[in-house]
Amino acid sequence: MEESSIEESVATVVEEAKELQDAVSAHISKTSTDEEPLRQRVRRLDSTIHSLLTALLMDLFVSLQLDEDLQRAKCIIVDGDASSLLPGHAQGSFLRMFLGPINVRASRKDVQLKVKEEYNSYRDRTAQLFLLFPALLLILRSWLWAGCLPAFPVQVYQAWLLFLYTGLALRENILRVNGSDIRPWWIYHHYCAMLMALVSLTWEIKGQPDCAKKQRGVQLFLQWAMMQGVAMLLQNRYQRQRLYTRIALGKAKRMDVVWGETAGVDGQLWLLCPILFTLQGFEAYVGLLLLKTAVVGVVSEWQVIFCGVLLVSMAVGNFANTVQTLMAKSRVKAKMKKSKSKQRLN
Amino acid sequence: MEESSIEESVATVVEEAKELQDAVSAHISKTSTDEEPLRQRVRRLDSTIHSLLTALLMDLFVSLQLDEDLQRAKCIIVDGDASSLLPGHAQGSFLRMFLGPINVRASRKDVQLKVKEEYNSYRDRTAQLFLLFPALLLILRSWLWAGCLPAFPVQVYQAWLLFLYTGLALRENILRVNGSDIRPWWIYHHYCAMLMALVSLTWEIKGQPDCAKKQRGVQLFLQWAMMQGVAMLLQNRYQRQRLYTRIALGKAKRMDVVWGETAGVDGQLWLLCPILFTLQGFEAYVGLLLLKTAVVGVVSEWQVIFCGVLLVSMAVGNFANTVQTLMAKSRVKAKMKKSKSKQRLN
Repeated sequence: MEESSIEESVATVVEEAKELQDAVSAHISKTSTDEEPLRQRVRRLDSTIHSLLTALLMDLFVSLQLDEDLQRAKCIIVDGDASSLLPGHAQGSFLRMFLGPINVRASRKDVQLKVKEEYNSYRDRTAQLFLLFPALLLILRSWLWAGCLPAFPVQVYQAWLLFLYTGLALRENILRVNGSDIRPWWIYHHYCAMLMALVSLTWEIKGQPDCAKKQRGVQLFLQWAMMQGVAMLLQNRYQRQRLYTRIALGKAKRMDVVWGETAGVDGQLWLLCPILFTLQGFEAYVGLLLLKTAVVGVVSEWQVIFCGVLLVSMAVGNFANTVQTLMAKSRVKAKMKKSKSKQRLN
Repeated sequence: MEESSIEESVATVVEEAKELQDAVSAHISKTSTDEEPLRQRVRRLDSTIHSLLTALLMDLFVSLQLDEDLQRAKCIIVDGDASSLLPGHAQGSFLRMFLGPINVRASRKDVQLKVKEEYNSYRDRTAQLFLLFPALLLILRSWLWAGCLPAFPVQVYQAWLLFLYTGLALRENILRVNGSDIRPWWIYHHYCAMLMALVSLTWEIKGQPDCAKKQRGVQLFLQWAMMQGVAMLLQNRYQRQRLYTRIALGKAKRMDVVWGETAGVDGQLWLLCPILFTLQGFEAYVGLLLLKTAVVGVVSEWQVIFCGVLLVSMAVGNFANTVQTLMAKSRVKAKMKKSKSKQRLN
């Protein structure tokens, strides 16, 4: 290029850059001005729906139809495009700690649903590994390693657990920011699990002699992890069915959330609950056993006591939260039955 | 509320929800339609600026003024509102692995700058801890623990390192998505550091007898970490000065990036470089020493060999990348000098 033509090009470019800067600024401020009244309307409608829902919950004798209509309105607001204008949960300190102040709220509902779907398929994939990884370790232990787990594969497993729980905790926090109503306990539960995976990494895997006795804790932990894998697979199926029902309803603009909430998955809940409670019992049992080995003095490291206490408190928390969820579900069902019998009387 | 009034309210709410859904959808599609021509203009201008910059770099005899004008245009596009319409780096697999498919690109430039500032202050805080934490361990080792580090505080330190490097790697990936031109090596470097912290957690801290000899690796590692703290503090000062210069220029619409890039921080670079090179030498030395202890057979765990190899490769990578950065800077400076002498001749 000749000097004069370059000079001209640069001058044009500088001019164009300034113009573009102004145009983009104007566009951004116009968009947010246009958005403001919509944002206010969405917030107002959301709070109206909430107060109406409370009023309906008090009144057992309103018709089922009213309840369904209101649920439909809620679904349109919460699962439709309008949800991007609703304030989500604030970004907690966990996300700030790892990611800094970046905004992880998706501005479009289709992205939000994609995030949820990906979270579910992530849980599915990990649930399979949750089943296979400890099973493989236990099988190799009796077939190949003569009852004595070597340190390296167990540590790889523990590192994988740490990574897995960190990923789950981050994703669940992101879901919450995007308006998911996930119970805070399940997130705390994953913080505890992260902590336990971290501590177990520093826990020396004892070898010969007498390793069967020293590795009793690790062995129990692996068995518990396998059960956890089964429970996760069942839970995922249950949760996914609920989500797909909601997505389908949102798309079809036909609304039957109450069905999706309880009736359709009732059969699975009866399978899921006993497994969950057994798992929680086993979790507490492993925790108490660890505490016992520490008290009796077979293994005297602080990690044993720490993991024991953590497992017991996780089991108690899980139990309390499962019971609360079941009670909330049965309350909705009781209300539905009353409404239905009232409709029949009419 | 009476039944009839509730019925009316629910009907209104359902109607309003449908209306709002339509209004928000229309608003979203209108915004993206309005945005499209702006997006195309920004992309076109960006590629024009890039080709002009290449043309100027070839031609050593264009005036300094032209170069500065072009840098100013680039700054307006890259640091102004228009940057939100530029395509950023794609979100890599590291972010996907931890966060799933959520978008971490800030849509507003002020948020992007906030993210950068927070990253810098995070680095500052951690650099101080980087200095204090190992220093405290080493002081307590000789004063309180009689030359023998207990396992627990060292493991807390290693867990902190793992958390820290994970946070840094996540933030740097987010910065890259937001258009930062951070060199990929520095991110890989933090992946290596994460891996090393993880491996060091599984590394049993040997106690008495003869712990001074067995803990030689840990001790060297702590000394290296302290030096790293000093280097991080200096690097942060240097980087922040560059950033603030750019922010000020962006706000004032006065542009002097070339000054910000080299001249203003030249003095500090002369202090920073020897320290960085010494640090890299020491890093390689610690790595080789670890490998030596493994070969001689004082400590025979796989962790020793692994950390040794990792430290040596990190040192080599750091050295190569520092040299490349310095060469790029000196090329810009040489060009500036030529342009200046040419201007004087004119």
